[in-house]
Amino acid sequence: MKTFRKHDFPVSEIRRFLEPGPIVLVSSSFKGERNIMTMGWHMMMGFEPALFACYIWEQNHSFELVRRSRQCVINLPTADLVDTVVAIGNYSGADLAADTDKFASFGLTPRKASLVQAPLIDQCHSSFECRLHDGSQVGRHNLFIWEVVKAHVARTPKIPQTLHYRGEGRFMLSGPDISRRRGFKPGML
Amino acid sequence: MKTFRKHDFPVSEIRRFLEPGPIVLVSSSFKGERNIMTMGWHMMMGFEPALFACYIWEQNHSFELVRRSRQCVINLPTADLVDTVVAIGNYSGADLAADTDKFASFGLTPRKASLVQAPLIDQCHSSFECRLHDGSQVGRHNLFIWEVVKAHVARTPKIPQTLHYRGEGRFMLSGPDISRRRGFKPGML
Repeated sequence: MKTFRKHDFPVSEIRRFLEPGPIVLVSSSFKGERNIMTMGWHMMMGFEPALFACYIWEQNHSFELVRRSRQCVINLPTADLVDTVVAIGNYSGADLAADTDKFASFGLTPRKASLVQAPLIDQCHSSFECRLHDGSQVGRHNLFIWEVVKAHVARTPKIPQTLHYRGEGRFMLSGPDISRRRGFKPGML
Repeated sequence: MKTFRKHDFPVSEIRRFLEPGPIVLVSSSFKGERNIMTMGWHMMMGFEPALFACYIWEQNHSFELVRRSRQCVINLPTADLVDTVVAIGNYSGADLAADTDKFASFGLTPRKASLVQAPLIDQCHSSFECRLHDGSQVGRHNLFIWEVVKAHVARTPKIPQTLHYRGEGRFMLSGPDISRRRGFKPGML
């Protein structure tokens, strides 16, 4: 699998990659245990601070790692990673042998993050380091509200082709971009 | 603009249309006033009940209509509506003359909903009637958690081409669907 060399990117501009609704891979780390999960239920919630919310089912092995560490990394896989994305989503970290993890099992390369313990994934186009901003809705709604504290983005491709889940094993692939910039008031851009 | 004849659709399956992250039009109604807003910050939160969360900026004219009525309709526009979507997003309901609203201003046709006061939009492919499920995070995070109580979906096209916002006036268009159904465990579908 191809790896991406990523560069610092302004956290206030991450909507470019996350707002269109792609499937992401959530990496986590807690007390020596690492995991990766596939996630599609998320949304932007603010620019500065860069807030991002997501729903994580409490039956996911990652739930406790994320909840207890109060950190994660949101990684953006490109469309060619679809089979890895599906495999990760269908295999629980709890089922793996004690001496392995999803990085090893699926041939993904962890890379040390700057501000959190959870690792970036080299094979993903972008990685967003998150710290828990508000955990008050985790118990009630499985809802985590994150602040993205650091963003790492590859320079090419500028806009990666992404996967968007529809349920029932079906993905929408992202299509071309179009600009309607001239239709916007300056303050709305 | 084309209109869509919509049919009842199971609310437990609306992820097919909403989970990929499209721009939607939120229609609202309160004490004789109607409005429409463009929205991109939303996520699925459950199947049964069908929960759906969204962030609405408190400066949006729709914010108070939605907050006070505790209802809205989420309408899914197809890609050919892009200029209407942009115009709605750049024009506040507060700027309109007292005797008009965004339906009249933008040539959209309201249709009576079944369970809420807010109208469906005939020119949208799908419309989802919502009642407020949890308003506890509205004051703190502008976050509304809705239960979708009724879904109306056109039969053709089965999968509409949708708009996904990236910021800076730029939209991603949805591309083709692919199936990886065979890679899923039965319980994961």
